[in-house]
Amino acid sequence: MATQRRLANAIRALAMDAVEAANSGHPGMPMGMADAATALFTRHLKYDAAYPHWPDRDRFILSAGHGSMLIYALLHLTGYERPTMDDIRNFRKISSPCAGHPENFMMAGVETTTGPLGQGLASAVGMAIAERHLNAIYGDELVDHRTYVVAGDGCLMEGVNHEAVGLAGHLKLGRLIVLWDDNKITIDGSTDLSRKEDVVARHEAMGWHTVECDGMDSAKVSKAIEEAIADERPSLIRCRTIIGYGAPNKQGTAATHGAALGADEVAAARKELGWDMPPFEIPDDVSQAWRDAGSRGAKARADWYKRVENSARGSELLDRLAGKIDNSWLQPYIDELLASPAKVATRKASEMALEKINAALPQTIGGSADLTGSNNTKTKALVPLTAGNYGGRYIYYGIREFGMAAAMNGMAQHGGVLPYGGTFLVFSDYSRPAIRLGALMGAKVVHVMTHDSIGLGEDGPTHQPIEHLQSLRAMPGLTVFRPADAVETAECWAAALAHAGPSLLALSRQNLPQLRREAASTNLCAHGAYRLRAAGKARKVILIATGSEVEIALDVAQGLEENGIGADVVSMPSTDLFDQQPDTYREDILPDVSNREILRVSIEAGTTIGWERYTGLHGLRIGIDRFGASAPATDLYDHFGLTAPKILSRVLDYLKVREIA
Amino acid sequence: MATQRRLANAIRALAMDAVEAANSGHPGMPMGMADAATALFTRHLKYDAAYPHWPDRDRFILSAGHGSMLIYALLHLTGYERPTMDDIRNFRKISSPCAGHPENFMMAGVETTTGPLGQGLASAVGMAIAERHLNAIYGDELVDHRTYVVAGDGCLMEGVNHEAVGLAGHLKLGRLIVLWDDNKITIDGSTDLSRKEDVVARHEAMGWHTVECDGMDSAKVSKAIEEAIADERPSLIRCRTIIGYGAPNKQGTAATHGAALGADEVAAARKELGWDMPPFEIPDDVSQAWRDAGSRGAKARADWYKRVENSARGSELLDRLAGKIDNSWLQPYIDELLASPAKVATRKASEMALEKINAALPQTIGGSADLTGSNNTKTKALVPLTAGNYGGRYIYYGIREFGMAAAMNGMAQHGGVLPYGGTFLVFSDYSRPAIRLGALMGAKVVHVMTHDSIGLGEDGPTHQPIEHLQSLRAMPGLTVFRPADAVETAECWAAALAHAGPSLLALSRQNLPQLRREAASTNLCAHGAYRLRAAGKARKVILIATGSEVEIALDVAQGLEENGIGADVVSMPSTDLFDQQPDTYREDILPDVSNREILRVSIEAGTTIGWERYTGLHGLRIGIDRFGASAPATDLYDHFGLTAPKILSRVLDYLKVREIA
Repeated sequence: MATQRRLANAIRALAMDAVEAANSGHPGMPMGMADAATALFTRHLKYDAAYPHWPDRDRFILSAGHGSMLIYALLHLTGYERPTMDDIRNFRKISSPCAGHPENFMMAGVETTTGPLGQGLASAVGMAIAERHLNAIYGDELVDHRTYVVAGDGCLMEGVNHEAVGLAGHLKLGRLIVLWDDNKITIDGSTDLSRKEDVVARHEAMGWHTVECDGMDSAKVSKAIEEAIADERPSLIRCRTIIGYGAPNKQGTAATHGAALGADEVAAARKELGWDMPPFEIPDDVSQAWRDAGSRGAKARADWYKRVENSARGSELLDRLAGKIDNSWLQPYIDELLASPAKVATRKASEMALEKINAALPQTIGGSADLTGSNNTKTKALVPLTAGNYGGRYIYYGIREFGMAAAMNGMAQHGGVLPYGGTFLVFSDYSRPAIRLGALMGAKVVHVMTHDSIGLGEDGPTHQPIEHLQSLRAMPGLTVFRPADAVETAECWAAALAHAGPSLLALSRQNLPQLRREAASTNLCAHGAYRLRAAGKARKVILIATGSEVEIALDVAQGLEENGIGADVVSMPSTDLFDQQPDTYREDILPDVSNREILRVSIEAGTTIGWERYTGLHGLRIGIDRFGASAPATDLYDHFGLTAPKILSRVLDYLKVREIA
Repeated sequence: MATQRRLANAIRALAMDAVEAANSGHPGMPMGMADAATALFTRHLKYDAAYPHWPDRDRFILSAGHGSMLIYALLHLTGYERPTMDDIRNFRKISSPCAGHPENFMMAGVETTTGPLGQGLASAVGMAIAERHLNAIYGDELVDHRTYVVAGDGCLMEGVNHEAVGLAGHLKLGRLIVLWDDNKITIDGSTDLSRKEDVVARHEAMGWHTVECDGMDSAKVSKAIEEAIADERPSLIRCRTIIGYGAPNKQGTAATHGAALGADEVAAARKELGWDMPPFEIPDDVSQAWRDAGSRGAKARADWYKRVENSARGSELLDRLAGKIDNSWLQPYIDELLASPAKVATRKASEMALEKINAALPQTIGGSADLTGSNNTKTKALVPLTAGNYGGRYIYYGIREFGMAAAMNGMAQHGGVLPYGGTFLVFSDYSRPAIRLGALMGAKVVHVMTHDSIGLGEDGPTHQPIEHLQSLRAMPGLTVFRPADAVETAECWAAALAHAGPSLLALSRQNLPQLRREAASTNLCAHGAYRLRAAGKARKVILIATGSEVEIALDVAQGLEENGIGADVVSMPSTDLFDQQPDTYREDILPDVSNREILRVSIEAGTTIGWERYTGLHGLRIGIDRFGASAPATDLYDHFGLTAPKILSRVLDYLKVREIA
């Protein structure tokens, strides 16, 4: 029977060989952590390689994603369908699912995309929350698994680590176990170059259990994992390792971190490790032992499905895990709004919609980064999710925007829950790295971003978004919504829930009248933009506005009509969705700009950059191309020229100039 | 003589009254920390209110910027020119420099803009670095001051705190003293809602000295400050306080955090505090005592100026503090490049330029967030700045992108140094909040962002910027540069150095040929865009490209000319600067788009959103509107259609369709 070390050496060999073939990649980390990973995958991790989507599997997160060959080797050796050995041979080539960093959409077994440091661990916190939450609802029989993370020094130095560790300690997520690859090396060299920290003491200060071991002795790692499992706090296992272990001339140095070792060093490492197989070949005894490990969980998996079948709530759980959404709350609620219109801020309108949503969809988990009363994210019936009550559905994330967004990604990827979380739109800058990773992964989360313009008033330019809407719209995979009133807010929420990937709602602090007073046959916001008002007189102007500026656009249109100029108003809550509409729809809403007879005007209380896409170069773009200021909202709208009279006068002047020209 | 408590009550009264008048703001924090601030400003802080720009003053940073009335009260009472009492009366109105959060550009004495939580403290780390660095060069006689910070729980929970505290601990910044307003309250309620952390133990684990005191007993705060001064490590003073202290019915609750107390509670607080003055009035004894405190430093200030005058290096120091830049390195270096062209990645070209810059400008301090060898930020002569050698000029920031950018802001605001720091462009998302704050403040820093497109290759979509260039260009106050070759890189560096605010250089990983072979009479990149190649045949197409895509555009132009179609190539290293050029210049480079005879085509390996500004709606935008992939760079350029033959074919097809239409 193959020793644990020999199993680990199979990982080392594949890591060296794949990086060598690609002439690019990171061999050092997989080689250092091979023994620890072997301990985890052959003895502790609950999984069945033949059924990678088994919901009650333990989750394994390679937070130090650059060491991707570690997980590719593990998945291959334990018998997952992918990667095949050919996939590994083609590591980092476009034809292979073995991307430079592990991508959750490339193969099963990669639970979350990692690479941007710190985020794997921070997402794992979300997975551990989702597990405890579902356990509280469905019990140990149906939900009973752990979340394991391999993290490097980078993951521990990034700021988001503080937020993730703090949140996990606070929520006492005892089923979260982090194996720290303590190899004392970063890209620039020794960790002494940039860090003077007692990492263990810091985790203890944050409410974590800690344990140390020789990370290259799998038996000792096993013992540490057992100790971690036994403790009720989240655990940090300090695995003392040597980066690039086995490469006799380079191990222990940054030279093994991010580059191929070179043919000579690979040959020397083979000798050092006693590994005499050619590249990409695994001896039968090793192969068999790994496959046995990969099917260790088969019985547990089969038993679990039996329990689900026999459970009264089994099919409910499976439906939740499948992510089914019921949007039947929408129409009756819109009928209510049409019957008694609401003049409220869209952040309040969001809360009103959430009252319906949270009642209809038990899978939602709300929260806010310490702005609950401002983001209006907590509906009345929601009870806090705490260390004492994991069944709660509202998380006080604390002042941790990035940690919140990353945890939301992890919850979504765990499945069975649908997270939404709030902060101010300007602080999307803080959570942006997680918003992006969620967009790349298609994680279904809703970012509730209130105080979406200078309309927040006195807090001033540090709190006033200017470039945020456009810079978020430019992010692939994210759908941004900026509704104009209570009806649009409901429609945008429904569109966000119906949509597969992440969404972001930009909501006003200030009150807005209900502009939509008539029933529509479809969710108008789901088209991205629609004609809210058709020109009375011959159409000469199309005013395109979003959110709080739609009300202003309607007033401008009124003024234009009084001057004999027909004006449409197009409400455009989502440029992303509008861009995806068929040509015929888009051309109906915005007729070809080459028709210089019609002036298009965009109105949004933010940067004008990018609005040329909808106005054309000869259109007019009303916005704010500088930072904001501190004053009451109405004063600011006036100061920045965003009132109906000022805009009307600009449009009339522009039309005059065009006539002359 | 007024007691310390009475002096503190003047702060409390002004905070209550100003928030009441504005009916908006945050009275709780100033009321809780009034005694601690009084201790600091009357006994320890080295400053002279009459000379707020005295370079050797201690720095005071209100990291919990929402408590802005604390600093406004302090500056007013100690006798700074602004704010006047009228300014305070108009707190949070557009006419007043007393903005909702303290803005460094609104009044002297506000050392840095604060509000986005965590960043004041993180910038203070940079100020403390600058002080030690200049001290190492100019000695105790000329540079000898401290940096004090008031931080709340938000500042301590944000992720950037981990990076800032880690950096300060590592660099042993003993002159950095943080007063933590430990009031156990956040917006959502008790800190217990979201935190279970031994904050003091965490700081000790990070190499900090800590001390605790009753934060509402100014004598005890003084003693703690003395202890902090005596310790050679950075210090955290835990000031136990009661938020909103003095408001008898609301103190100690989140109700005092972010809203006016209301007339009744203000009246009750006046009684409780024994403060019988009308709003905005200060009794003479209190006023006098505060003014005496504000002029305590007058002699030290006068002595310092004398020492500067008498020092051989005094005028050199003053020049550095004035931020004078010598760009005479540029022309001889460009001559070198023209004489022997370099085919290098622009990240390497940046290193080559930095060799000249760092030799010419002793004020530069370089660094990288653990990507030194990839960002090419360390030139040969630079010695590391460490706890043992503050005179060094290169900082190993560790894996702390946000902390690095915030520290750079602080260094720039301290003055006397010019910081630049590197990471990958995609990780501008991590440092984005500090990039924005620097842009708002006009902090002169240079962000060196390498690996600026899919051209980085195998690391895949998590590492490949798509939306980043456009989303950074949309940020007011930031100038983004993306040079195409070694000459442009030098010109962009020179433009960045000449420029008052922050700049960001986007640089390639891959090698690029030197496209500029002829001498120019000006810095062409300083115009933002220029005609690199004029059409040979009658101009039918203008190709607009940036960075690594300019080479491709030249090949496309060549192909068009071979097809009988005249084509300009416009290199556009900075859209920001181009937009600022006079109309005549812009119209020369990009003739009116309404002339449909000329097709404009943009080529950039990133999102096409926003390029309509330069191509018009009927132009063609070549880019990438999805996430990238993992493969060698040349394969990716082909995969995403960004090769000269593929673009040429698209342009030719488009011209054909237009002819038919």
